[in-house]
Amino acid sequence: MIKANNPDLKSWIEVDKNSDFPIQNLPFGIFVREGKLPRACVAIGDCVVDLAEFALAGYLRDLNVNLQIFENSFLNPVIGMGKEKCRLLRQLVSDILHAENPELRDRQDMRKKIIHKMSDVKMLIPVRIGDYTDFYSSIDHATNVGKMFRDPANALLPNWKHLPVAYHGRSSSICVSGHSFHRPKGQTKPADADLPIFGPCKLLDFELEMAFIIGKQTQLGESVSTAVADDYIFGLTLFNDWSARDIQTWEYVPLGPFLAKNFASTISPWIVTLDALEPFRTAGYTQEPKVLPYLEYKGEKNIDIHLEVSIQPEKSEENIVSKSNYKFMYWTMEQQLAHHTSNGCNINIGDLMASGTISGPTPGSFGSMLELSWKGTKPIQLKDGTDRKFINDNDTVIMRGYCEKEGVRIGFGEASGKVLPAL
Amino acid sequence: MIKANNPDLKSWIEVDKNSDFPIQNLPFGIFVREGKLPRACVAIGDCVVDLAEFALAGYLRDLNVNLQIFENSFLNPVIGMGKEKCRLLRQLVSDILHAENPELRDRQDMRKKIIHKMSDVKMLIPVRIGDYTDFYSSIDHATNVGKMFRDPANALLPNWKHLPVAYHGRSSSICVSGHSFHRPKGQTKPADADLPIFGPCKLLDFELEMAFIIGKQTQLGESVSTAVADDYIFGLTLFNDWSARDIQTWEYVPLGPFLAKNFASTISPWIVTLDALEPFRTAGYTQEPKVLPYLEYKGEKNIDIHLEVSIQPEKSEENIVSKSNYKFMYWTMEQQLAHHTSNGCNINIGDLMASGTISGPTPGSFGSMLELSWKGTKPIQLKDGTDRKFINDNDTVIMRGYCEKEGVRIGFGEASGKVLPAL
Repeated sequence: MIKANNPDLKSWIEVDKNSDFPIQNLPFGIFVREGKLPRACVAIGDCVVDLAEFALAGYLRDLNVNLQIFENSFLNPVIGMGKEKCRLLRQLVSDILHAENPELRDRQDMRKKIIHKMSDVKMLIPVRIGDYTDFYSSIDHATNVGKMFRDPANALLPNWKHLPVAYHGRSSSICVSGHSFHRPKGQTKPADADLPIFGPCKLLDFELEMAFIIGKQTQLGESVSTAVADDYIFGLTLFNDWSARDIQTWEYVPLGPFLAKNFASTISPWIVTLDALEPFRTAGYTQEPKVLPYLEYKGEKNIDIHLEVSIQPEKSEENIVSKSNYKFMYWTMEQQLAHHTSNGCNINIGDLMASGTISGPTPGSFGSMLELSWKGTKPIQLKDGTDRKFINDNDTVIMRGYCEKEGVRIGFGEASGKVLPAL
Repeated sequence: MIKANNPDLKSWIEVDKNSDFPIQNLPFGIFVREGKLPRACVAIGDCVVDLAEFALAGYLRDLNVNLQIFENSFLNPVIGMGKEKCRLLRQLVSDILHAENPELRDRQDMRKKIIHKMSDVKMLIPVRIGDYTDFYSSIDHATNVGKMFRDPANALLPNWKHLPVAYHGRSSSICVSGHSFHRPKGQTKPADADLPIFGPCKLLDFELEMAFIIGKQTQLGESVSTAVADDYIFGLTLFNDWSARDIQTWEYVPLGPFLAKNFASTISPWIVTLDALEPFRTAGYTQEPKVLPYLEYKGEKNIDIHLEVSIQPEKSEENIVSKSNYKFMYWTMEQQLAHHTSNGCNINIGDLMASGTISGPTPGSFGSMLELSWKGTKPIQLKDGTDRKFINDNDTVIMRGYCEKEGVRIGFGEASGKVLPAL
């Protein structure tokens, strides 16, 4: 297995020291070149490795799979090989890309076919997402929201510390990084009005999230324990669960958010494998009161992933408005999955399970404008002299994330989305 | 176009007068025979017409489509032909099955290939469902729930008459009629307890619903007006949105139902086209207060579909526990779809949009045990001498529905699911 935290491992492909994609990472994606069909790839430095051509060259012989799985619009068939084969695949790619391996390194003709600059390709959504679930598992986020909208003294609802609260989201409107969308319109009820109105959302917000992608299916009736949950998690992405706060306020009682969330979500194009992230596991919050037995888990299951959010106004520079960390999750992925399947709900390869907004304990680490501007009462100053309570038209919101340890940086790339004016 | 309400139209295939599937209906499904691959079909009487063989015989030449769309596990590619071609397809089938058309009638060899008894085939889930949305659009149901759990004097929440409340459901656990599933387990908090417990659901319920299947996709940002909504609705099915009431009570604040709903839903195997249902349109409730302009609609858009629910205990006979009607919907499908897309949310062929529990104004027409037994205070007597507040292990719940007018009955078949004991 690739040692993600081995700093001595180097590739003959040059990788900048600040790159998210050293040879220790090798995340999976789907790319397309002009006039060609989509293909599976891995990232290294500022390049993509075309796995279909890589396989055609014979480098994946040991995998013993139908090579057509790499000529696909989605990674689902690759993930469907199972964790052991995906591990072997990353190992085989790593071996060929190793600095001292001349096999591909010294063959310019083959390199041209197999390796492309990221700037020459377009990244597509990496998986066909079946069902999308959004959790609400950051205690600082839930506490902030509770303080703002409910009782500051009893910010968390009674169930919050007993189960990872979640709801079903909409898969159809999940878009890959680099997209733009029009500000949603919807029904809202102004505080001083008797009747609702319809028009463009006035309180458009991002939600800084991570998402994990299911790598192994279950049958209806089956439950996944926290002990084996990792076998069902293929990898992680960045995720922006765009939210229309004013639409949500009016619509969400009693059945939860609907049109406030399903107009667009942004996913990063690279799925970083759970294997690559293992060296960055860390302890999470102490769970008190004690959770029910089916939610207990052993070991350190949080992951130390530095996260940040930038707002980039049209024709202006980026402004980092939040620095958070995935380690601030109260409920771990393993608990989320155990809970999700505790009733026998079946999961499929490609299902996406998002964390919910990830806020840290300090104001600069909050994961949404709602919290950062504290419901609009504390505008955020930008470098261009403007300020933001929420997101303006023509703003681009960019999320980034990476782990770092002993000189190895395992990153996620970007989840970037731009807001166009309402239609 | 087939005149669904023309009682004079007869087929050479014998159709019982109480059959759901006269030649005026011709709903679509997916069937499989032992040792064969799944195929698209239409129902007539107690038979299925294999559309792949029907096409091979040359009867669908005028359609001018790739015949492979009929050799598929899902109807999505058939629906993807578009409404005009689906209309033509039903017309071509109708013509060949017409009592006076000898073309297939008099060719026993071809009939053997094309037509099978329903009892000799297995019906599969008819569509690959992308996203599943569940509305909450029956005013009698919402009022009943409000009376039981909130304020009897103000049973409806403030937003209820202004927008069709909805939430996203889980697609993966939607099963076709005839399935069984284990009683879900989950977290509940007994009223007299300080802490939640984990165990089998004690208040398992059905929800009598109809669902419509999307027949035409939109792009992100696009909205569908009530005036053209019917162009996007392919047809309807019966739908049982099984619910664990005790799990729901504890988990659902603030983000809505999650594990209380996603352990199983039952769909009927036949999609009855909107075309076949047009003759049964009827007026709905008066909407007061007036809805916002984007929710206004013209004409009669409810549909008069008789619905009923039976409980069948193990080795015992059926007991009809509810007789309701789809015409009792406060919000129409056209309004639901206009609302769903009002924020630019994109829809795909095969998306499923369910009505929410359909209750009528009288106790015998309520669409869930929660209402029928009024929260367990009024048990329902069954013929075998037992009673039910909710659903017991080994009970089968069967939903049926049909329209009837001028001697023509357009039915839906069954949505039947059996509850096995918790694992």
